[in-house]
Amino acid sequence: MIVPADSPFGPENLPYGVFSTGGGSPRIGVRVGEQVLDLSVALGDAGFAEPSLNAFMAQGYDRWVDVRGRIQELIAGDVPAEALHAVGEVTLHLPFEVADYVDFYASEHHASNVGRLFRPDAEPLLPNWKHLPVGYHGRAGTVYPSGTDVVRPSGQRKGPDGPAPVFGPSTRLDIEAELGFVVGTGTPANTPVSPDEFPRHVFGAVLLNDWSARDIQAWEYVPLGPNLGKSFATSVSPWVVPILALAEARIPLPGQHDPEPLPYLRESRPWGLDIELAVRWNGQQVARPPYREMYWSPAQMLAHLTVNGASARTGDLYGSGTISGPEPAERGSFLELSWGGRDPLTVNGESRTFLQDGDEVVVEGTATTGSGTKLGFGEVRGRILPAR
Amino acid sequence: MIVPADSPFGPENLPYGVFSTGGGSPRIGVRVGEQVLDLSVALGDAGFAEPSLNAFMAQGYDRWVDVRGRIQELIAGDVPAEALHAVGEVTLHLPFEVADYVDFYASEHHASNVGRLFRPDAEPLLPNWKHLPVGYHGRAGTVYPSGTDVVRPSGQRKGPDGPAPVFGPSTRLDIEAELGFVVGTGTPANTPVSPDEFPRHVFGAVLLNDWSARDIQAWEYVPLGPNLGKSFATSVSPWVVPILALAEARIPLPGQHDPEPLPYLRESRPWGLDIELAVRWNGQQVARPPYREMYWSPAQMLAHLTVNGASARTGDLYGSGTISGPEPAERGSFLELSWGGRDPLTVNGESRTFLQDGDEVVVEGTATTGSGTKLGFGEVRGRILPAR
Repeated sequence: MIVPADSPFGPENLPYGVFSTGGGSPRIGVRVGEQVLDLSVALGDAGFAEPSLNAFMAQGYDRWVDVRGRIQELIAGDVPAEALHAVGEVTLHLPFEVADYVDFYASEHHASNVGRLFRPDAEPLLPNWKHLPVGYHGRAGTVYPSGTDVVRPSGQRKGPDGPAPVFGPSTRLDIEAELGFVVGTGTPANTPVSPDEFPRHVFGAVLLNDWSARDIQAWEYVPLGPNLGKSFATSVSPWVVPILALAEARIPLPGQHDPEPLPYLRESRPWGLDIELAVRWNGQQVARPPYREMYWSPAQMLAHLTVNGASARTGDLYGSGTISGPEPAERGSFLELSWGGRDPLTVNGESRTFLQDGDEVVVEGTATTGSGTKLGFGEVRGRILPAR
Repeated sequence: MIVPADSPFGPENLPYGVFSTGGGSPRIGVRVGEQVLDLSVALGDAGFAEPSLNAFMAQGYDRWVDVRGRIQELIAGDVPAEALHAVGEVTLHLPFEVADYVDFYASEHHASNVGRLFRPDAEPLLPNWKHLPVGYHGRAGTVYPSGTDVVRPSGQRKGPDGPAPVFGPSTRLDIEAELGFVVGTGTPANTPVSPDEFPRHVFGAVLLNDWSARDIQAWEYVPLGPNLGKSFATSVSPWVVPILALAEARIPLPGQHDPEPLPYLRESRPWGLDIELAVRWNGQQVARPPYREMYWSPAQMLAHLTVNGASARTGDLYGSGTISGPEPAERGSFLELSWGGRDPLTVNGESRTFLQDGDEVVVEGTATTGSGTKLGFGEVRGRILPAR
């Protein structure tokens, strides 16, 4: 089949998703250019007529390599028309069943910005931040596919001067532009995964928007961390870009020299990734968060998650945390872009700090390989509906 | 069948579990006295020949009432021998598949003790504590059935005076004696569950031991809460005591007057529960944590979890948080019982602060109904193995 040479969905990418057509059963497909390859038809393997990637992911690294090779071979020749669907004519679903969901906090620029905003009189980074990838568990049951509307959450909030909290719709609804990593083959209890084993365990990556109600979060989060400020919705993109593809976009990390990480976090060759996101607010681009600036790698995150003996399972999802670069236009949350709401943005001629009802946010992402090839992530999209 | 009148597993209890015999398939049973009733045999319903309670729980409240009535009717007469197994001769399994796991912090005495230990110069309770049931998400994939050994976790810890963190086995391994509540029928997104709807959604309760590595937790937990200090293991008891049974042990809460909870947390009649736990360390009873002293009810916890629009699913598990009463011998963690390690306990003639390799902890629980009947929870048991 013919794929335009400049397509971000060429033979070096081949992200997996779950799609359906005309009300039919969801099944596994691979995006090639502007088409979706129906894998059960193309490979004659009913194992791909499944509504999630989990069973395929659980088959392990050698199988991932094999299937990827067969797809690349197949699309180099003629593909029967019945195995192809225009991407605009299919419905895309949540591509995997989420087991546990963990969100990290791996951008030094983001963590520093948040520190400056919330603790203006203290060091921006807390003492543990450069020693371990700080993270917490989120709600797996509210991870939604791109395009799912987000109803404005209600909850408790309390201003610094209010005598008591009030209940009502969040007035500081925000996004966090992130990458999410999907575990393909887990690890049993008490069998930590070293950073160098990362590509044998993690199947792929998605774009992730960790919707955040800052007012609810600020009141609830001491001492046990975020809960209802985050648990109402997390959106992920429909295409899971294989780590086998992203390996070609591998770059050094910006630096972990002072302090050097403890041995269990050291990588023979770091899993920095040359990926850039773009955030569009009601169609207007407001930020270009650079994933390549992240302090901790996804390989270090999985090593940290399992070093205490915790098992990992097929379908585990972990987010990078908000991706922010050193420049103001590289910040991956509206909290940072509006500096705590103090500096409104002009979006299509309207002033914005946090999200208003009807607003739509689209996060896109592209990886760049060492040879300059672009690998598209597609997008994760969501619109805000009024509180109920 | 004949059940001794003083059995804590009489016809007013009837907890559900999953058991197997002689290497056979796990299936659903109900504990009656010292026997396990094989439900698929006893009721002639293959739907109970399942390895988890989830499908049954998802059938909803009316079905729970119906099946309970039929079991009570059945055991009032003669039960065929092939439907009964001695409890000592069966293997008990994790009774349900855990969807999301959340742990609360609902004991005022526990939260105050922890506050006094960790922040000696400040108010013991943080400002939000009496306004909302503080909680966080834990790791669903590491919830284990009673009897599972716990390998001592390793991780980063840093003393207050150390220049940098060190990596190694936890030296402050602790328990948290809790109750866990199991969601039977969930709620879709944006459909909060009011406290009064609690018994239609929550199927039952188990004993829960939230194993905690205090040194790992202390270093990692700012600002996003506990993660690796808890995620290595959470143990639950094998018998799920129905809320239909526990409704007879309902009592008022100790008091929520100052402040009064916000309307979404108000109960027409509170779901306080007259339950007492016992903690045995290497066979010696070291505490009797009184669940009846808990500040927040489990109905308020579910209302809080869903008020922001988060869905709930069959198999969601939420813990009460450590149960501690006002008296020293009523504290549900060794952190509190040893007052931060300063006041060792004498356990079988040996001095203990935190757990040593080979130590075994058993938590038992009993509810008392309004008419004085005892409803047993059985026990949750775990032994510490050396770090790997």
